[in-house]
Amino acid sequence: METTISRIGEGGVTTPAGFRAAGVSCGIKKAGAGPPRLDLAIVAADGAVAAAGIFTTNRAVAAPVVVSRDHLARSGGRAVAIVTNSGCANACTGAAGLQVARDMAAAAAAALGCDPAQVLVASTGVIGVQLDIAKVRAGISAASRALSVDGSADATLAIMTTDPFPKSCAITVDTPRGPLTVGGMAKGSGMIEPRMATMLGYLTTDAVIAPDVLARILTRVADETFNAITVDGECSTNDSVFALASGRSGVTITRDDDPTILEPFTAVAGHLAREIVRGGEGATKLVTVRVTGAASHGDAWLAARTIANSPLVKTAIHGGDPNWGRLVAAAGRSGAAFDIDGASVHIGDVPLFVKGVPHDERAERAAQVLASREIAVTVDLGTGGAHQATMWTCDFSAEYVKINAEYRT
Amino acid sequence: METTISRIGEGGVTTPAGFRAAGVSCGIKKAGAGPPRLDLAIVAADGAVAAAGIFTTNRAVAAPVVVSRDHLARSGGRAVAIVTNSGCANACTGAAGLQVARDMAAAAAAALGCDPAQVLVASTGVIGVQLDIAKVRAGISAASRALSVDGSADATLAIMTTDPFPKSCAITVDTPRGPLTVGGMAKGSGMIEPRMATMLGYLTTDAVIAPDVLARILTRVADETFNAITVDGECSTNDSVFALASGRSGVTITRDDDPTILEPFTAVAGHLAREIVRGGEGATKLVTVRVTGAASHGDAWLAARTIANSPLVKTAIHGGDPNWGRLVAAAGRSGAAFDIDGASVHIGDVPLFVKGVPHDERAERAAQVLASREIAVTVDLGTGGAHQATMWTCDFSAEYVKINAEYRT
Repeated sequence: METTISRIGEGGVTTPAGFRAAGVSCGIKKAGAGPPRLDLAIVAADGAVAAAGIFTTNRAVAAPVVVSRDHLARSGGRAVAIVTNSGCANACTGAAGLQVARDMAAAAAAALGCDPAQVLVASTGVIGVQLDIAKVRAGISAASRALSVDGSADATLAIMTTDPFPKSCAITVDTPRGPLTVGGMAKGSGMIEPRMATMLGYLTTDAVIAPDVLARILTRVADETFNAITVDGECSTNDSVFALASGRSGVTITRDDDPTILEPFTAVAGHLAREIVRGGEGATKLVTVRVTGAASHGDAWLAARTIANSPLVKTAIHGGDPNWGRLVAAAGRSGAAFDIDGASVHIGDVPLFVKGVPHDERAERAAQVLASREIAVTVDLGTGGAHQATMWTCDFSAEYVKINAEYRT
Repeated sequence: METTISRIGEGGVTTPAGFRAAGVSCGIKKAGAGPPRLDLAIVAADGAVAAAGIFTTNRAVAAPVVVSRDHLARSGGRAVAIVTNSGCANACTGAAGLQVARDMAAAAAAALGCDPAQVLVASTGVIGVQLDIAKVRAGISAASRALSVDGSADATLAIMTTDPFPKSCAITVDTPRGPLTVGGMAKGSGMIEPRMATMLGYLTTDAVIAPDVLARILTRVADETFNAITVDGECSTNDSVFALASGRSGVTITRDDDPTILEPFTAVAGHLAREIVRGGEGATKLVTVRVTGAASHGDAWLAARTIANSPLVKTAIHGGDPNWGRLVAAAGRSGAAFDIDGASVHIGDVPLFVKGVPHDERAERAAQVLASREIAVTVDLGTGGAHQATMWTCDFSAEYVKINAEYRT
């Protein structure tokens, strides 16, 4: 996979053939000192194409998630466009908010000449505030006229809330059946302004894939990428990842375990996911958490998730402290089977705790590893099991608290 | 319970008849600029008395926890003393550490003239460092000679790591069968120095209680007190809560649902537990999290725990931001049954979200509530269920990060 990632290039959702995009400003985001900020994006296929989506597991589900789920079911996994606004999450907005999300899809369908069920919607921004449908309609009107194969960069900007940088990429792979391209864009889960709280991901490809296969592939890919990252363990009301397959490459995918599509999808989604972590609020380091020696698949993920979300682990890494005891304690409290006499901890390649025995004489070497901006920690649970999991997280800085404690103005 | 708590008075583990205590300095804690810091405590009964303990659920269990569990089983729930050192957790120390914990109990047993299985042990401090048994022996020798009914304050100081203040209290209640006294002390879960990581609680009473009844009472009481607090969701390798019952009051307790003992135990344990939160690292506010309208007991606790540990909720409260959307999002992701159309959120007595409808016009009133140092937030899960739970947590400040990110020196 590392090789694949190294081939990740410039580009975005319009790099695969058959897609256009646009990002416009329609006044949902508050005006600042500079030029108006982009706050409405459309990603459109040239016609109805295979579409899939995976959504937040939060039971406080935002209106656009309800509508997108419904539309995917009603359309049989076919979509013409995804419309996204930033600046307002349309979450906790009751029946009125649900109607706004439906109207948003209907407005895009009218502009693009398709069925409303062939439009997916997403929103990100403040929770509990009604989304102004008049502004959304104006934005959809402008964006649908601006759709272009060059519109990927604007679309990427228009889905951002206060992400520190835009996130998009693309990759073209040569297959025995010809070249196949995957593009993508994402916005962060960094809740950089109060009540901003959403991760959105968009994957496009020119592969030929049936909707049901695309849905299974998206789930597989997301489990190892977007679902394997954490900034602060929070799961938003609006999290959504979409995939569209235009079929324009002529490369046909029929199996959800076909590496021809899994590899580039995973490369693009993994790159975007790690960029989200790197742009996490207050983050200064990208941390890869590997758990090995787990008795089950579930245990490996449970331990990895607990470590990746541990405030004590994340503050120690922020401070460059090779405090392996916190990694042991987090693994131990995770609920995963754990045998301390067989357990080991590495920071980078430095073994600080080996089969239950501390090696604090190596702390200085480990501290040098922790001075980097990209760090890997490995915890072996000591059970002798062969299961493992990898997650990505960031360090935990005082800046995170500052960002999230500031009173809304 | 509020009435009972208001009667909490000065005192500690030696307030009930039949107990003596001492705290001494034996050099386990590093010497600072001031006088040597107390680092070894003994709480002793006048003879073998009913004893119970509950311990960390962390699978990386520290040596003293292993030994105390073993001793309670072997003695049939009878103990003469609890010996505690601070400055070194004796955790992740392998077979050598286990021997040190056993030797610690044996040394105290020799000094007090009892069976080693009648001594319980606890340690708190740095993980992964061997505890110096020579220092411990010297401390036990000094402390056993210093045991006194006036030794409670010194014992409370000697179990502290870097808690900002000592925590002890006592209460005497009049029962139809005569007065009954409960005393207690605790140290915080604040991980104020790197790798300091333990909550310890001690309850004493002069009630007459059989060991098995005492064990069940302790579990009931701890579930509503020590197990209902969180500072950062971390669970240490050494957490222990002990109870000793001397029987000296002559008030006999035979049922584990007897309010005669449950009320004062809960009052003392609840007071100590809230003091631990108040002394949490970087804490500036004590927050009571109430969850109502839950479909089950488990759901109520799951939602309360998720809210109480949410970094976004805790930073919002730190910043005085009445950001009810974060409370809804935390409840929604908790896994508890949740119906957003029936859900409500109160900050203090201000309803900001009522049966799915936002009331942001009340944000200013809620912000005034959040300016206090003690705050209650209530989330109704909207299921119509009658289950509820109450937890205590603190806000999350930049100081927490600073404290936990500093490199060990």
